Amino acid sequence: MTDCVFCKIIDGSAPARKVYEDDSVVGFLDIRPMSRGHTLLVPRIHSSGLGDLVPDDGAALMRAGQVVAAALRTAPLTRDDEPADGVNLVVNDGKAAFQTVFHTHLHVIPRHRGDKLRMARSLLVRRDKNPDATAATVRAAVLEQIGPA
Amino acid sequence: MTDCVFCKIIDGSAPARKVYEDDSVVGFLDIRPMSRGHTLLVPRIHSSGLGDLVPDDGAALMRAGQVVAAALRTAPLTRDDEPADGVNLVVNDGKAAFQTVFHTHLHVIPRHRGDKLRMARSLLVRRDKNPDATAATVRAAVLEQIGPA
Repeated sequence: MTDCVFCKIIDGSAPARKVYEDDSVVGFLDIRPMSRGHTLLVPRIHSSGLGDLVPDDGAALMRAGQVVAAALRTAPLTRDDEPADGVNLVVNDGKAAFQTVFHTHLHVIPRHRGDKLRMARSLLVRRDKNPDATAATVRAAVLEQIGPA
Repeated sequence: MTDCVFCKIIDGSAPARKVYEDDSVVGFLDIRPMSRGHTLLVPRIHSSGLGDLVPDDGAALMRAGQVVAAALRTAPLTRDDEPADGVNLVVNDGKAAFQTVFHTHLHVIPRHRGDKLRMARSLLVRRDKNPDATAATVRAAVLEQIGPA
């Protein structure tokens, strides 16, 4: 898909802070994070949503989601270097379900105890002041999960 | 897990409106639906969350999620018999991520165009007036997806 920004990220022709890769899935930081470390996982093969997603790629997305979730639960994400206390995995399929980029993706969103207010604010702000540091932190935690390639 | 309500639903010792079953996953209506047809998919093998979920079961959850999402996009769910226009797949992992039942589950939530206000209301109400009819409707749509057993 020549017009798909996620396909461009996958093939390297658009910039992104990649934090995860396997044979069928690429992961990178969301540019509008709900919280620090918010990662998007995308199948390398383009599909617009669940309707045309290869089921094996859906399965691979969830396997990768479990790895990245485990990584976020060890990564020093907060000002106090606390890892995530919880994680949401989310697929928004269709405009009515808040999908905005039509290349199937799984959100991996770190949560912290007592962050409900911060989350409410983050719905408006969605900005990470130092995404490069975040990417390095998440990448290191993912490597701890999967071991060096 | 003798204390786990989802294990009881799986083994039939607690009631639920089942709408999906395969070798490793059982699906039933959420008793506090975000929208009509809101389904929970659970692995037959108990795990409390992503940390102790067998990766093959996570993959099976996503495969089942894709089938149920396709079913909800054909099922006559609204007053006007309209199917879902979109679907959210969600895993809440950990209390900080809004998990309330500690048996891993995937939410499959139908969405409809222009239902943002209704969704806001549904966060408070979360009640289906005729869940038996809903279960029959979803079951029929799932059967159309997978064919008779």
